[in-house]
Amino acid sequence: MIRTETVRNILSWYEGETPGLKANLSRLLMHGRLAGTGRLVILPVDQGFEHGPARSFAPNPAAYDPHYLYQLAIEAGVSGYAAPLGLLEQGADTFAGEVPLILKVNSGNSLAASANDQALTGTVDDAMRLGCVGVGFTIYPGSDMAYDMIEELRQISHEAKSRGLLSVVWSYPRGGKITKGSGETSLDIIAYAAHIAALMGATIIKVKLPSDGIDLDAAKSSYEKYDVPHATIAERVRHIMQASFNGKRVVVFSGGEAKTREDLLDEVRGIREGGGNGSIIGRNSFQRSKDEALKLLGEIMDIYA
Amino acid sequence: MIRTETVRNILSWYEGETPGLKANLSRLLMHGRLAGTGRLVILPVDQGFEHGPARSFAPNPAAYDPHYLYQLAIEAGVSGYAAPLGLLEQGADTFAGEVPLILKVNSGNSLAASANDQALTGTVDDAMRLGCVGVGFTIYPGSDMAYDMIEELRQISHEAKSRGLLSVVWSYPRGGKITKGSGETSLDIIAYAAHIAALMGATIIKVKLPSDGIDLDAAKSSYEKYDVPHATIAERVRHIMQASFNGKRVVVFSGGEAKTREDLLDEVRGIREGGGNGSIIGRNSFQRSKDEALKLLGEIMDIYA
Amino acid sequence: MIRTETVRNILSWYEGETPGLKANLSRLLMHGRLAGTGRLVILPVDQGFEHGPARSFAPNPAAYDPHYLYQLAIEAGVSGYAAPLGLLEQGADTFAGEVPLILKVNSGNSLAASANDQALTGTVDDAMRLGCVGVGFTIYPGSDMAYDMIEELRQISHEAKSRGLLSVVWSYPRGGKITKGSGETSLDIIAYAAHIAALMGATIIKVKLPSDGIDLDAAKSSYEKYDVPHATIAERVRHIMQASFNGKRVVVFSGGEAKTREDLLDEVRGIREGGGNGSIIGRNSFQRSKDEALKLLGEIMDIYA
Amino acid sequence: MIRTETVRNILSWYEGETPGLKANLSRLLMHGRLAGTGRLVILPVDQGFEHGPARSFAPNPAAYDPHYLYQLAIEAGVSGYAAPLGLLEQGADTFAGEVPLILKVNSGNSLAASANDQALTGTVDDAMRLGCVGVGFTIYPGSDMAYDMIEELRQISHEAKSRGLLSVVWSYPRGGKITKGSGETSLDIIAYAAHIAALMGATIIKVKLPSDGIDLDAAKSSYEKYDVPHATIAERVRHIMQASFNGKRVVVFSGGEAKTREDLLDEVRGIREGGGNGSIIGRNSFQRSKDEALKLLGEIMDIYA
Amino acid sequence: MIRTETVRNILSWYEGETPGLKANLSRLLMHGRLAGTGRLVILPVDQGFEHGPARSFAPNPAAYDPHYLYQLAIEAGVSGYAAPLGLLEQGADTFAGEVPLILKVNSGNSLAASANDQALTGTVDDAMRLGCVGVGFTIYPGSDMAYDMIEELRQISHEAKSRGLLSVVWSYPRGGKITKGSGETSLDIIAYAAHIAALMGATIIKVKLPSDGIDLDAAKSSYEKYDVPHATIAERVRHIMQASFNGKRVVVFSGGEAKTREDLLDEVRGIREGGGNGSIIGRNSFQRSKDEALKLLGEIMDIYA
Repeated sequence: MIRTETVRNILSWYEGETPGLKANLSRLLMHGRLAGTGRLVILPVDQGFEHGPARSFAPNPAAYDPHYLYQLAIEAGVSGYAAPLGLLEQGADTFAGEVPLILKVNSGNSLAASANDQALTGTVDDAMRLGCVGVGFTIYPGSDMAYDMIEELRQISHEAKSRGLLSVVWSYPRGGKITKGSGETSLDIIAYAAHIAALMGATIIKVKLPSDGIDLDAAKSSYEKYDVPHATIAERVRHIMQASFNGKRVVVFSGGEAKTREDLLDEVRGIREGGGNGSIIGRNSFQRSKDEALKLLGEIMDIYA
Repeated sequence: MIRTETVRNILSWYEGETPGLKANLSRLLMHGRLAGTGRLVILPVDQGFEHGPARSFAPNPAAYDPHYLYQLAIEAGVSGYAAPLGLLEQGADTFAGEVPLILKVNSGNSLAASANDQALTGTVDDAMRLGCVGVGFTIYPGSDMAYDMIEELRQISHEAKSRGLLSVVWSYPRGGKITKGSGETSLDIIAYAAHIAALMGATIIKVKLPSDGIDLDAAKSSYEKYDVPHATIAERVRHIMQASFNGKRVVVFSGGEAKTREDLLDEVRGIREGGGNGSIIGRNSFQRSKDEALKLLGEIMDIYA
Repeated sequence: MIRTETVRNILSWYEGETPGLKANLSRLLMHGRLAGTGRLVILPVDQGFEHGPARSFAPNPAAYDPHYLYQLAIEAGVSGYAAPLGLLEQGADTFAGEVPLILKVNSGNSLAASANDQALTGTVDDAMRLGCVGVGFTIYPGSDMAYDMIEELRQISHEAKSRGLLSVVWSYPRGGKITKGSGETSLDIIAYAAHIAALMGATIIKVKLPSDGIDLDAAKSSYEKYDVPHATIAERVRHIMQASFNGKRVVVFSGGEAKTREDLLDEVRGIREGGGNGSIIGRNSFQRSKDEALKLLGEIMDIYA
Repeated sequence: MIRTETVRNILSWYEGETPGLKANLSRLLMHGRLAGTGRLVILPVDQGFEHGPARSFAPNPAAYDPHYLYQLAIEAGVSGYAAPLGLLEQGADTFAGEVPLILKVNSGNSLAASANDQALTGTVDDAMRLGCVGVGFTIYPGSDMAYDMIEELRQISHEAKSRGLLSVVWSYPRGGKITKGSGETSLDIIAYAAHIAALMGATIIKVKLPSDGIDLDAAKSSYEKYDVPHATIAERVRHIMQASFNGKRVVVFSGGEAKTREDLLDEVRGIREGGGNGSIIGRNSFQRSKDEALKLLGEIMDIYA
Repeated sequence: MIRTETVRNILSWYEGETPGLKANLSRLLMHGRLAGTGRLVILPVDQGFEHGPARSFAPNPAAYDPHYLYQLAIEAGVSGYAAPLGLLEQGADTFAGEVPLILKVNSGNSLAASANDQALTGTVDDAMRLGCVGVGFTIYPGSDMAYDMIEELRQISHEAKSRGLLSVVWSYPRGGKITKGSGETSLDIIAYAAHIAALMGATIIKVKLPSDGIDLDAAKSSYEKYDVPHATIAERVRHIMQASFNGKRVVVFSGGEAKTREDLLDEVRGIREGGGNGSIIGRNSFQRSKDEALKLLGEIMDIYA
């Protein structure tokens, strides 16, 4: 399949980048069922690190096996598969080249007393060795460790991009001036999170789907005075895209915990309508049986296609 | 346009520097409407990082697009454009060589609980790759993190200057012995801030326009006994220039939040009269419509010309 | 002895690794009485560092001599011998090549006020110099220093594996949300610990044998709802293997303090039945007389063989 | 002028050093009015960093200009001029080779809440680039940051000396067990400070002129039992020289804040009589008019000559 | 003098080491009056750093001069001389090759408020430059900074040994679970200290001579149950040697503050009888007049010979 005009246009946004990086971005956007559409669905499996194996895989024990996760990603035809080091290694050879890989290079775990940081758990070298198209990195803007995380991102992103790897940034605000819970998914906070990722040079930005609340007092007047529309999912997604260099960055959204199929598909429709580039679907896929997961991922990709 | 005597004189102050650095300083001082005058106006866009996208760009949504900011800088004929990594990247190729660029390599954000530090968000390598004339770095003299910031500046400045890049220092005192609020813009504090930047080897110093107060008790007697004039803006600017190696460093002033056009122009007249080298105009330009912004920047540059 | 099919199969799990690392893993699995079985028994001697010399060696003073420990490992025919720098050095030449060595590169000591960290006490260079097959590293998931330990592991593991050395991870949760004492050996916590080690790219995982408790409230519902069997040692070991990439990582178990011979042998039977790869037997071997130790190690290996 | 026997003798003390370093030490000792005498007077200008520009230069505004400070040093015929990066850069080319330069590579400022540390503000590379004979570094033995400062000194000193640059150590005890105020200049503390600098390998030691008090209880008995004479300035200086490898290190003294001309000259006479190598004269020179400063520096040097 | 069988045997214990390191160990063991005996007496002069110059040298002012200390070591015929950077430098050329040198690369001082750490004050490069046979490093097992000190030791030891320099470890437990004062010299604690140094790969271990107390509750039962003899100095030294790889590491003992000549000689007899390798004699030598010091050192070496 020849690169589409849509993908060619997306690549043109990344002016500062090397042909090597653009080739990897093209690989991701030209892979799977959504190849060439400028949309993408990514399978992320970092829940084992974050919540432990039983909470992640007991609902569908086949998923304890790293090969199963590769197979799910390949059979579903998702655009890419993102996971920590061990999971990617166990399958990297068997499935070499069958699905674009993103190595998640930092991870938190829920045994820790506080949740304001993540540990570096992989290297750019690892990503090169495993044939990945990019590295994934989480930042927590607002947290006590946010500036340290941003500095780590700066280093890893610089190293990754200099070797042609995409920098995929999970931007998840928490702590600081942000209201615990509801504030973390409010519109202004998510827009800020996406903007920070864009300013940090992220190739792909991953944020949570925003609610319609505005959290920071200092921001409320701007939203009211300039009347930023945010009643519907589509409008909120549109604002997030605006905050992401006026739509000139690839942004994907996560929905969080497993929910009903209909809720999830409604969200996907909103993302598509608002101009978002796609979804990251984790627990909603690997915690279902393979048949159900393939069906759901198929429905999601049908909406985006 | 051949380098003017005025610019030639300014370059002569930078005795310790390489021809490469002087070439970049010359590029900045010989660009745009103020080329050759020894004065300069710089467009900075770090407000998105510091206050979030909506507070920065909702008043003029066109400014969400990084290309718009490049165009504004180019059409207005300002001397240079300063911004964080992502903003410069998105346009670096399209507008290559059309306006001198300064990469802001550290940034704070207002989600953080405290405001005594910034995170490193770009590298000297990035500045080279993007064809910048210099790097920008903020220090907060007085804050708990001041010595760490100064040490980071020392490293980045050394690396930048060894490659011919200007070191542009935003010197913004806060914390420590400084009275919160009013003290941060008092005359003695701003003079101290400018002096520290000069001692650190800054090529260009950026400070806030000082008020007429004296904050530190230890400094009051010196100001009184030796009768340092500071009733007018021009007199205060003159003192800041004195503290900047007796006027032998390039110093630009920022006015802070958007205010009336007349207030702003009065400040500019004071800076010019006091021997300051120019202004940094951010929110007062990109938060207005393009026509209004071009008009205002034109009026400002008319005063300096 | 030619490499068995069982070992060949185990090597096939380590897709991401170099032939050099697989050769070292093969060396370990093809050594001693359990050669070729896919099971292994390792002699660890880090108790001197952790509890001091008298508490470790007074019961059997011959063990004060590093040569004795080498001889014990060699005569018993265990798969490998793991110890800190000094112990391996004193014997490395005399016994060169007679038993696979694992250099423990971090260690704690019980003089310290708190027990939430270990100090780096050896280097990958040392392991190469001494002819080791791998390096051993302890992490304490949950502790205040856990993320730092994980980042150290990432660096050392990367360095070790790039030179073909195995990464053997002692994953011992403590602190954070874990109930002090009983929680540290509960099933969910040990499963989480094994999973983290696997995700970090451990070649061999070492955990404590789990009890039948579930410690974290957030995990209880998963264990109940999905009915994870855990009444017997074998069932619990089976779950740990599941959490270790569905049994596709080598996992060895430690039993802790010296206990009766029968208790120990029952544990070993449970590990074998549950699909665990073997045991680490420290104080139960070197604190007995050599004859008794050889007899006990023989009985243990008979069960695994 | 041919190197004198006195200077030749001083160089012989520095057994461990390279010919390059000895050449720079010789340059310093063979320069200006005191050339060849083994005595030296140094002009330091770090007060702008430490107390701000107005408190430093308002008494004599000509001193705002870095060229003025070079000219003062050259016309007075002092042995060397020590200052932070920016001040040396602005004049380095104009006055190249006219006076030995010492780059002060760390500095504190009085905006900071506490005064237990300094920030690194220059590099050994800078000192090489500017043609300096040495680098200056302040340590605060006793302070909470003392060990960090000592480790920084170790690194910078090692780097400087390996390139033939002198290591000039400002050893200013404070904090810890030292009585605030009076204790900082007591005889035992200053002797300890000089001894630490000598043990750290300082080429030149700079301490404050000691008072006759003994601060540490643990030291009092030694001073009493062994009857160390310390009634006069000369006796106290003699003890400091004893603590400085029995007089085999170059030690210079500072007097602190501006005082009467007679007090200052008396101190100088005491230093000379006690075998000290000279003085560092800062505010007492650049805060007076040039004529007065030249006159005072002349009188001081007349005493030492 | 040809290397004796005793020394040849000692060298054979250091299996992991390079010929370069063994050559330096041989140099130390074949030097001075105890050459070839496998015993050694070392002159350490770090008291000036630790207690200040007057408390160290006022009793014998000749010792202020670094040359005196070299002469004392050479004339007495001790095995080696250990001191911080400045002291070794001042004499390194004059006395080059006349006595084996050990550069103490970390040091504490008694101005600091707490005594749980030391600062790095010298480098392995310095030791090479000065022709030393080894480096000396202090650790404080138990203190809050113990793990950091151990990690520094690991780095410096690795660097030193890779260049053939001995790693001489001063292992001085304090803080943590250790009873302040008496606990620091109790038998179990000193045995633990020696064992940690051995495990860290120390070539030579330096500990204090233990008292007959047992400090840690957890250790008491082991000492009682297994009946470790410790009534006499010789028995206690024998246990320390046991904890030092069953006597296969060189261990030297310090006695601490100056005491009567008879007490000191009794201690030396106990060390010899218990199989210890020798003594470190500091204040008891350089605080006496040279004649008295030579006499005392002679008597000590007579016992060991």
